[in-house]
Amino acid sequence: MGMHQYIKSLSDLENIHRCPGKFKYEEHSVAAHSFKVTQIAQFLGTVEEQAGNDINWRSLYEKALNHDYTELFIGDIKTPVKYASPTLRDQLAEVEESMTAQFIETEIPEEFQLVYSERLKEGKDDTLEGKILSVADKVDLLYESFGEIQKGNPEVLFTQIFEESLNTILEFKEMDSVRYFMTHILPELLSEEFTNQEELHEISNRILEEHEVEQTFVI
Amino acid sequence: MGMHQYIKSLSDLENIHRCPGKFKYEEHSVAAHSFKVTQIAQFLGTVEEQAGNDINWRSLYEKALNHDYTELFIGDIKTPVKYASPTLRDQLAEVEESMTAQFIETEIPEEFQLVYSERLKEGKDDTLEGKILSVADKVDLLYESFGEIQKGNPEVLFTQIFEESLNTILEFKEMDSVRYFMTHILPELLSEEFTNQEELHEISNRILEEHEVEQTFVI
Amino acid sequence: MGMHQYIKSLSDLENIHRCPGKFKYEEHSVAAHSFKVTQIAQFLGTVEEQAGNDINWRSLYEKALNHDYTELFIGDIKTPVKYASPTLRDQLAEVEESMTAQFIETEIPEEFQLVYSERLKEGKDDTLEGKILSVADKVDLLYESFGEIQKGNPEVLFTQIFEESLNTILEFKEMDSVRYFMTHILPELLSEEFTNQEELHEISNRILEEHEVEQTFVI
Amino acid sequence: MGMHQYIKSLSDLENIHRCPGKFKYEEHSVAAHSFKVTQIAQFLGTVEEQAGNDINWRSLYEKALNHDYTELFIGDIKTPVKYASPTLRDQLAEVEESMTAQFIETEIPEEFQLVYSERLKEGKDDTLEGKILSVADKVDLLYESFGEIQKGNPEVLFTQIFEESLNTILEFKEMDSVRYFMTHILPELLSEEFTNQEELHEISNRILEEHEVEQTFVI
Amino acid sequence: MGMHQYIKSLSDLENIHRCPGKFKYEEHSVAAHSFKVTQIAQFLGTVEEQAGNDINWRSLYEKALNHDYTELFIGDIKTPVKYASPTLRDQLAEVEESMTAQFIETEIPEEFQLVYSERLKEGKDDTLEGKILSVADKVDLLYESFGEIQKGNPEVLFTQIFEESLNTILEFKEMDSVRYFMTHILPELLSEEFTNQEELHEISNRILEEHEVEQTFVI
Amino acid sequence: MGMHQYIKSLSDLENIHRCPGKFKYEEHSVAAHSFKVTQIAQFLGTVEEQAGNDINWRSLYEKALNHDYTELFIGDIKTPVKYASPTLRDQLAEVEESMTAQFIETEIPEEFQLVYSERLKEGKDDTLEGKILSVADKVDLLYESFGEIQKGNPEVLFTQIFEESLNTILEFKEMDSVRYFMTHILPELLSEEFTNQEELHEISNRILEEHEVEQTFVI
Repeated sequence: MGMHQYIKSLSDLENIHRCPGKFKYEEHSVAAHSFKVTQIAQFLGTVEEQAGNDINWRSLYEKALNHDYTELFIGDIKTPVKYASPTLRDQLAEVEESMTAQFIETEIPEEFQLVYSERLKEGKDDTLEGKILSVADKVDLLYESFGEIQKGNPEVLFTQIFEESLNTILEFKEMDSVRYFMTHILPELLSEEFTNQEELHEISNRILEEHEVEQTFVI
Repeated sequence: MGMHQYIKSLSDLENIHRCPGKFKYEEHSVAAHSFKVTQIAQFLGTVEEQAGNDINWRSLYEKALNHDYTELFIGDIKTPVKYASPTLRDQLAEVEESMTAQFIETEIPEEFQLVYSERLKEGKDDTLEGKILSVADKVDLLYESFGEIQKGNPEVLFTQIFEESLNTILEFKEMDSVRYFMTHILPELLSEEFTNQEELHEISNRILEEHEVEQTFVI
Repeated sequence: MGMHQYIKSLSDLENIHRCPGKFKYEEHSVAAHSFKVTQIAQFLGTVEEQAGNDINWRSLYEKALNHDYTELFIGDIKTPVKYASPTLRDQLAEVEESMTAQFIETEIPEEFQLVYSERLKEGKDDTLEGKILSVADKVDLLYESFGEIQKGNPEVLFTQIFEESLNTILEFKEMDSVRYFMTHILPELLSEEFTNQEELHEISNRILEEHEVEQTFVI
Repeated sequence: MGMHQYIKSLSDLENIHRCPGKFKYEEHSVAAHSFKVTQIAQFLGTVEEQAGNDINWRSLYEKALNHDYTELFIGDIKTPVKYASPTLRDQLAEVEESMTAQFIETEIPEEFQLVYSERLKEGKDDTLEGKILSVADKVDLLYESFGEIQKGNPEVLFTQIFEESLNTILEFKEMDSVRYFMTHILPELLSEEFTNQEELHEISNRILEEHEVEQTFVI
Repeated sequence: MGMHQYIKSLSDLENIHRCPGKFKYEEHSVAAHSFKVTQIAQFLGTVEEQAGNDINWRSLYEKALNHDYTELFIGDIKTPVKYASPTLRDQLAEVEESMTAQFIETEIPEEFQLVYSERLKEGKDDTLEGKILSVADKVDLLYESFGEIQKGNPEVLFTQIFEESLNTILEFKEMDSVRYFMTHILPELLSEEFTNQEELHEISNRILEEHEVEQTFVI
Repeated sequence: MGMHQYIKSLSDLENIHRCPGKFKYEEHSVAAHSFKVTQIAQFLGTVEEQAGNDINWRSLYEKALNHDYTELFIGDIKTPVKYASPTLRDQLAEVEESMTAQFIETEIPEEFQLVYSERLKEGKDDTLEGKILSVADKVDLLYESFGEIQKGNPEVLFTQIFEESLNTILEFKEMDSVRYFMTHILPELLSEEFTNQEELHEISNRILEEHEVEQTFVI
């Protein structure tokens, strides 16, 4: 009952595809998503550090790398289910916690249980690192949905995901890394060529206005 | 807001793959699974009818065909999560019901809402047709897991699914169609050539004994 | 030589892809197609019933569910080959019949042979259920081709399939379910956003005029 | 109406998969098969030449490269259908010929029609090059089936294909290249490690005996 | 150590996908590419022959069929790496030669080593057949990139590949087959319908002008 | 010319598949590999830390996460090519360095160039973190090859990769984390059920002996 099962399970994350039930031009596994979120968090952390904020790098990498591991035993519960009622949400969080605890007890050798308890905990807390993870997770989702929109996916879901991701990112608009994202990265993304460019511009402008962020790009 | 969205959504069921998170030689979509379960239910119904039982064919086909449609808006909640506590299970069932109700109200034209309320309801009730659906669903799962075992999938999960499916089928051992399955179909399946034939024989024998069903095949 | 082979063969229908030889964004198996046709037939039957027509539901489900099973042993003979000459067409129909008969004799247990002879027969006859199957089969084909057109497939074949499907559906324009389809579903489909929307509108209008059906939508 | 459509159609051959309707570990397109058959024919031609036989290389390459092109407009008619009756077989051959003629007339520029009439003709005639094509086509099929058997495919069809291929190859046992294949290549293939090695040895031995060819390998 | 390994290795060419690292709507294997290049070379050779030039058909087919076989043991070295410095380029060519020599010595039976030395040599020499191969290789690449552009791939790389292929083809503008391609095939390709048609027209015109070739098509 | 291209390029790493040219039951992208190597490095670092060694976590995560990013512009040069001669190896390393430098200059905003120079440098140096990366990279490769062996892949290459990986890991046998791997993880892996278990045991034993490491498991 040692770490062999854990190492083997990493490959199972290559077999979970994100956003099942919709046609996509490009599939993304939870393993690849975790890699990209950690890369994005690494970049956002760099921006924060250059802006003079202290980053606990160990914590940042750890949070980003492990943030979706528990999908292995929890599965992919659709957002509307999760948020159907506060009671249900609390209960699901409780079940996730107790299943994680049980997984650690049965699958992780005793001497590493404490460390992995920490690693598999919900990482999106109020620390700077927790907030960077929240943003990085949504930046990757925004890129995933943008990839579909740009390739011409007629499914409106991907425009909704784009919107919802941008909205969540802007909840953290006070952060230096989010400001950098809005000023330097989003305009580049929106200036790529694609058929429905105008629609995405309008959506982005509207969301920026709602968050009282000044528009940093022009059509 | 008419039936166009419903017809289009059928194709989304081709994009949900069963049993995510494990390597499989062969993927099965929820659409293909629904087809196979309806075919198997059609056969089990035939056995029941020849044994002199009345079958409401309309109900049987309807139950089988539609039994997994709600996965589209509920998602795939892992069994251990679902059964973590009786309260949680009840709450999830409630959410499923209310989401189904809401889906029907917003996506199905009024004149068909009653019919589709019936069609998207949990079909595994105590009627003969409901029981046939319960069995057919597990027969397909048993074949899915057998397909992996026969191709040499080293993942023990598939042996567990085989066991669990057989167990559930045998809970209905008083049914004529289940007796036919045990006597005529399972032995044929187990006599196929494959590396770990002996192990599956032993598992099957043990489960049969536990259910006090006489063994109908020899190694 | 019991039903094990039949149940196993259902999975082979997951391995036959429709319309080979052309690039498609989305593949559809014969198993998934059969599921969707049965769902569409279920809906068309509902419309007919609400219009006061008697539906033999058992027959309708049976016809739809099994209508492509024989592709397993016949294969996919291209339409131009099938219709090259009346003699060839008759001979191919004869071969299909005799191969089906032989399959039933060797693979289906005696007590079920009569039932499966009926099930694997050509279902598109002149009964209301047979006509619903004809329409449902083409509605799914129309949606398959629409899915490709909407995603930007440059292959003209899909526009031809869209046309040909609509044409066949309109041969049944006296049916209540077809009228419902033309009035309520086709307009919704055509109002979806996609690049070549205008072209599909024109095609649809032209076909409607040819069948002397009043246009029910505007650009 | 020039060669653009022809060049584009070559890519359609990448979208036809061989042997539909059966689970395979590895898919093979008609394009890849054509490449491999031409490579194998090139090798068999080399053996024949070294044995002192004259090879018309232009004809050999041409026959092998183009031998399955007509599948694009004929489709994949299952062997049992094709051979159901001599009349049907003749009629199908006739249709294939007339469809090929029509394809050439409408798709190939006039100045190249004669050349392509020759290229798209059935190549498996009684010339040495025609016989090499017959053998090469079956050698690739034998390797395709061997690939599945070696990977543990439980489907008996692949053993049957292996047998049937070997049988056809041995119909040409007087050819120097076939003798080389039996003496130098088949033994190497059979000495590869795989679970059901013994079964394939027995099958091969039996077929060799039936063709009165001396066994060239030992278990 | 006979030809069994060589025949088996042909299937490995089905497992190398061209242009890794970029999203593509359609994947192309080296095996399928080799088939298409040989087909295109066959056509270009026909044009040359009709223009009165002598074609060594054996050499032409041989060069085209085998031109990418060595990718199996060399791998896919990115063009910028290959051309980073003249020394590196020479050294890589040397390594390729010595690895090919070693492969032939260890994997090909002695009596065929001379023939296969010839076949696995760089085929793009100054003979007419070598030049046809150079052109055919780029025509297929141009069609591969056109396929992506036409389907709406937003990645600029494919426009660059289109340009670069056309440029290389025009380096051979004195050849009759290249003139045929420019006059009869490219205009047909560019007149296909697709979103960014204008851009490709402009690119093509510019390249034609740079090579002082008269434009043969109008928008 | 900001970080948008960098973030977008992360998705290109999902489109590079490892070990092209061989049939595999399971494909692994460079993105997923990078995720798994970082996870394994995280674990090995934990072992080292518990053994009393100081870990620079920031450096460890950074090295592991970014170690294969440059494959995007260098490509996958086969090992035998890379090691064909010391001169070639040096030259390739030089080209890699200068291409990385150029990539950073053109694609990374100035204020982050220094940080990314560090991140995209070869990470396998003589620091403890560099050595952990060397081991983690090979542990994932060993698991990838084991996955194929366990599923019955007949290709000997995977046994060779297993051997070669184990050999490289044992070059670091003085490390506490490697000792843990040999004592606690390898035995668990080898005790999994699979057909050629004995062969892998023998290989592992032989390699352990060659490295004068005591065997920690029994058959």
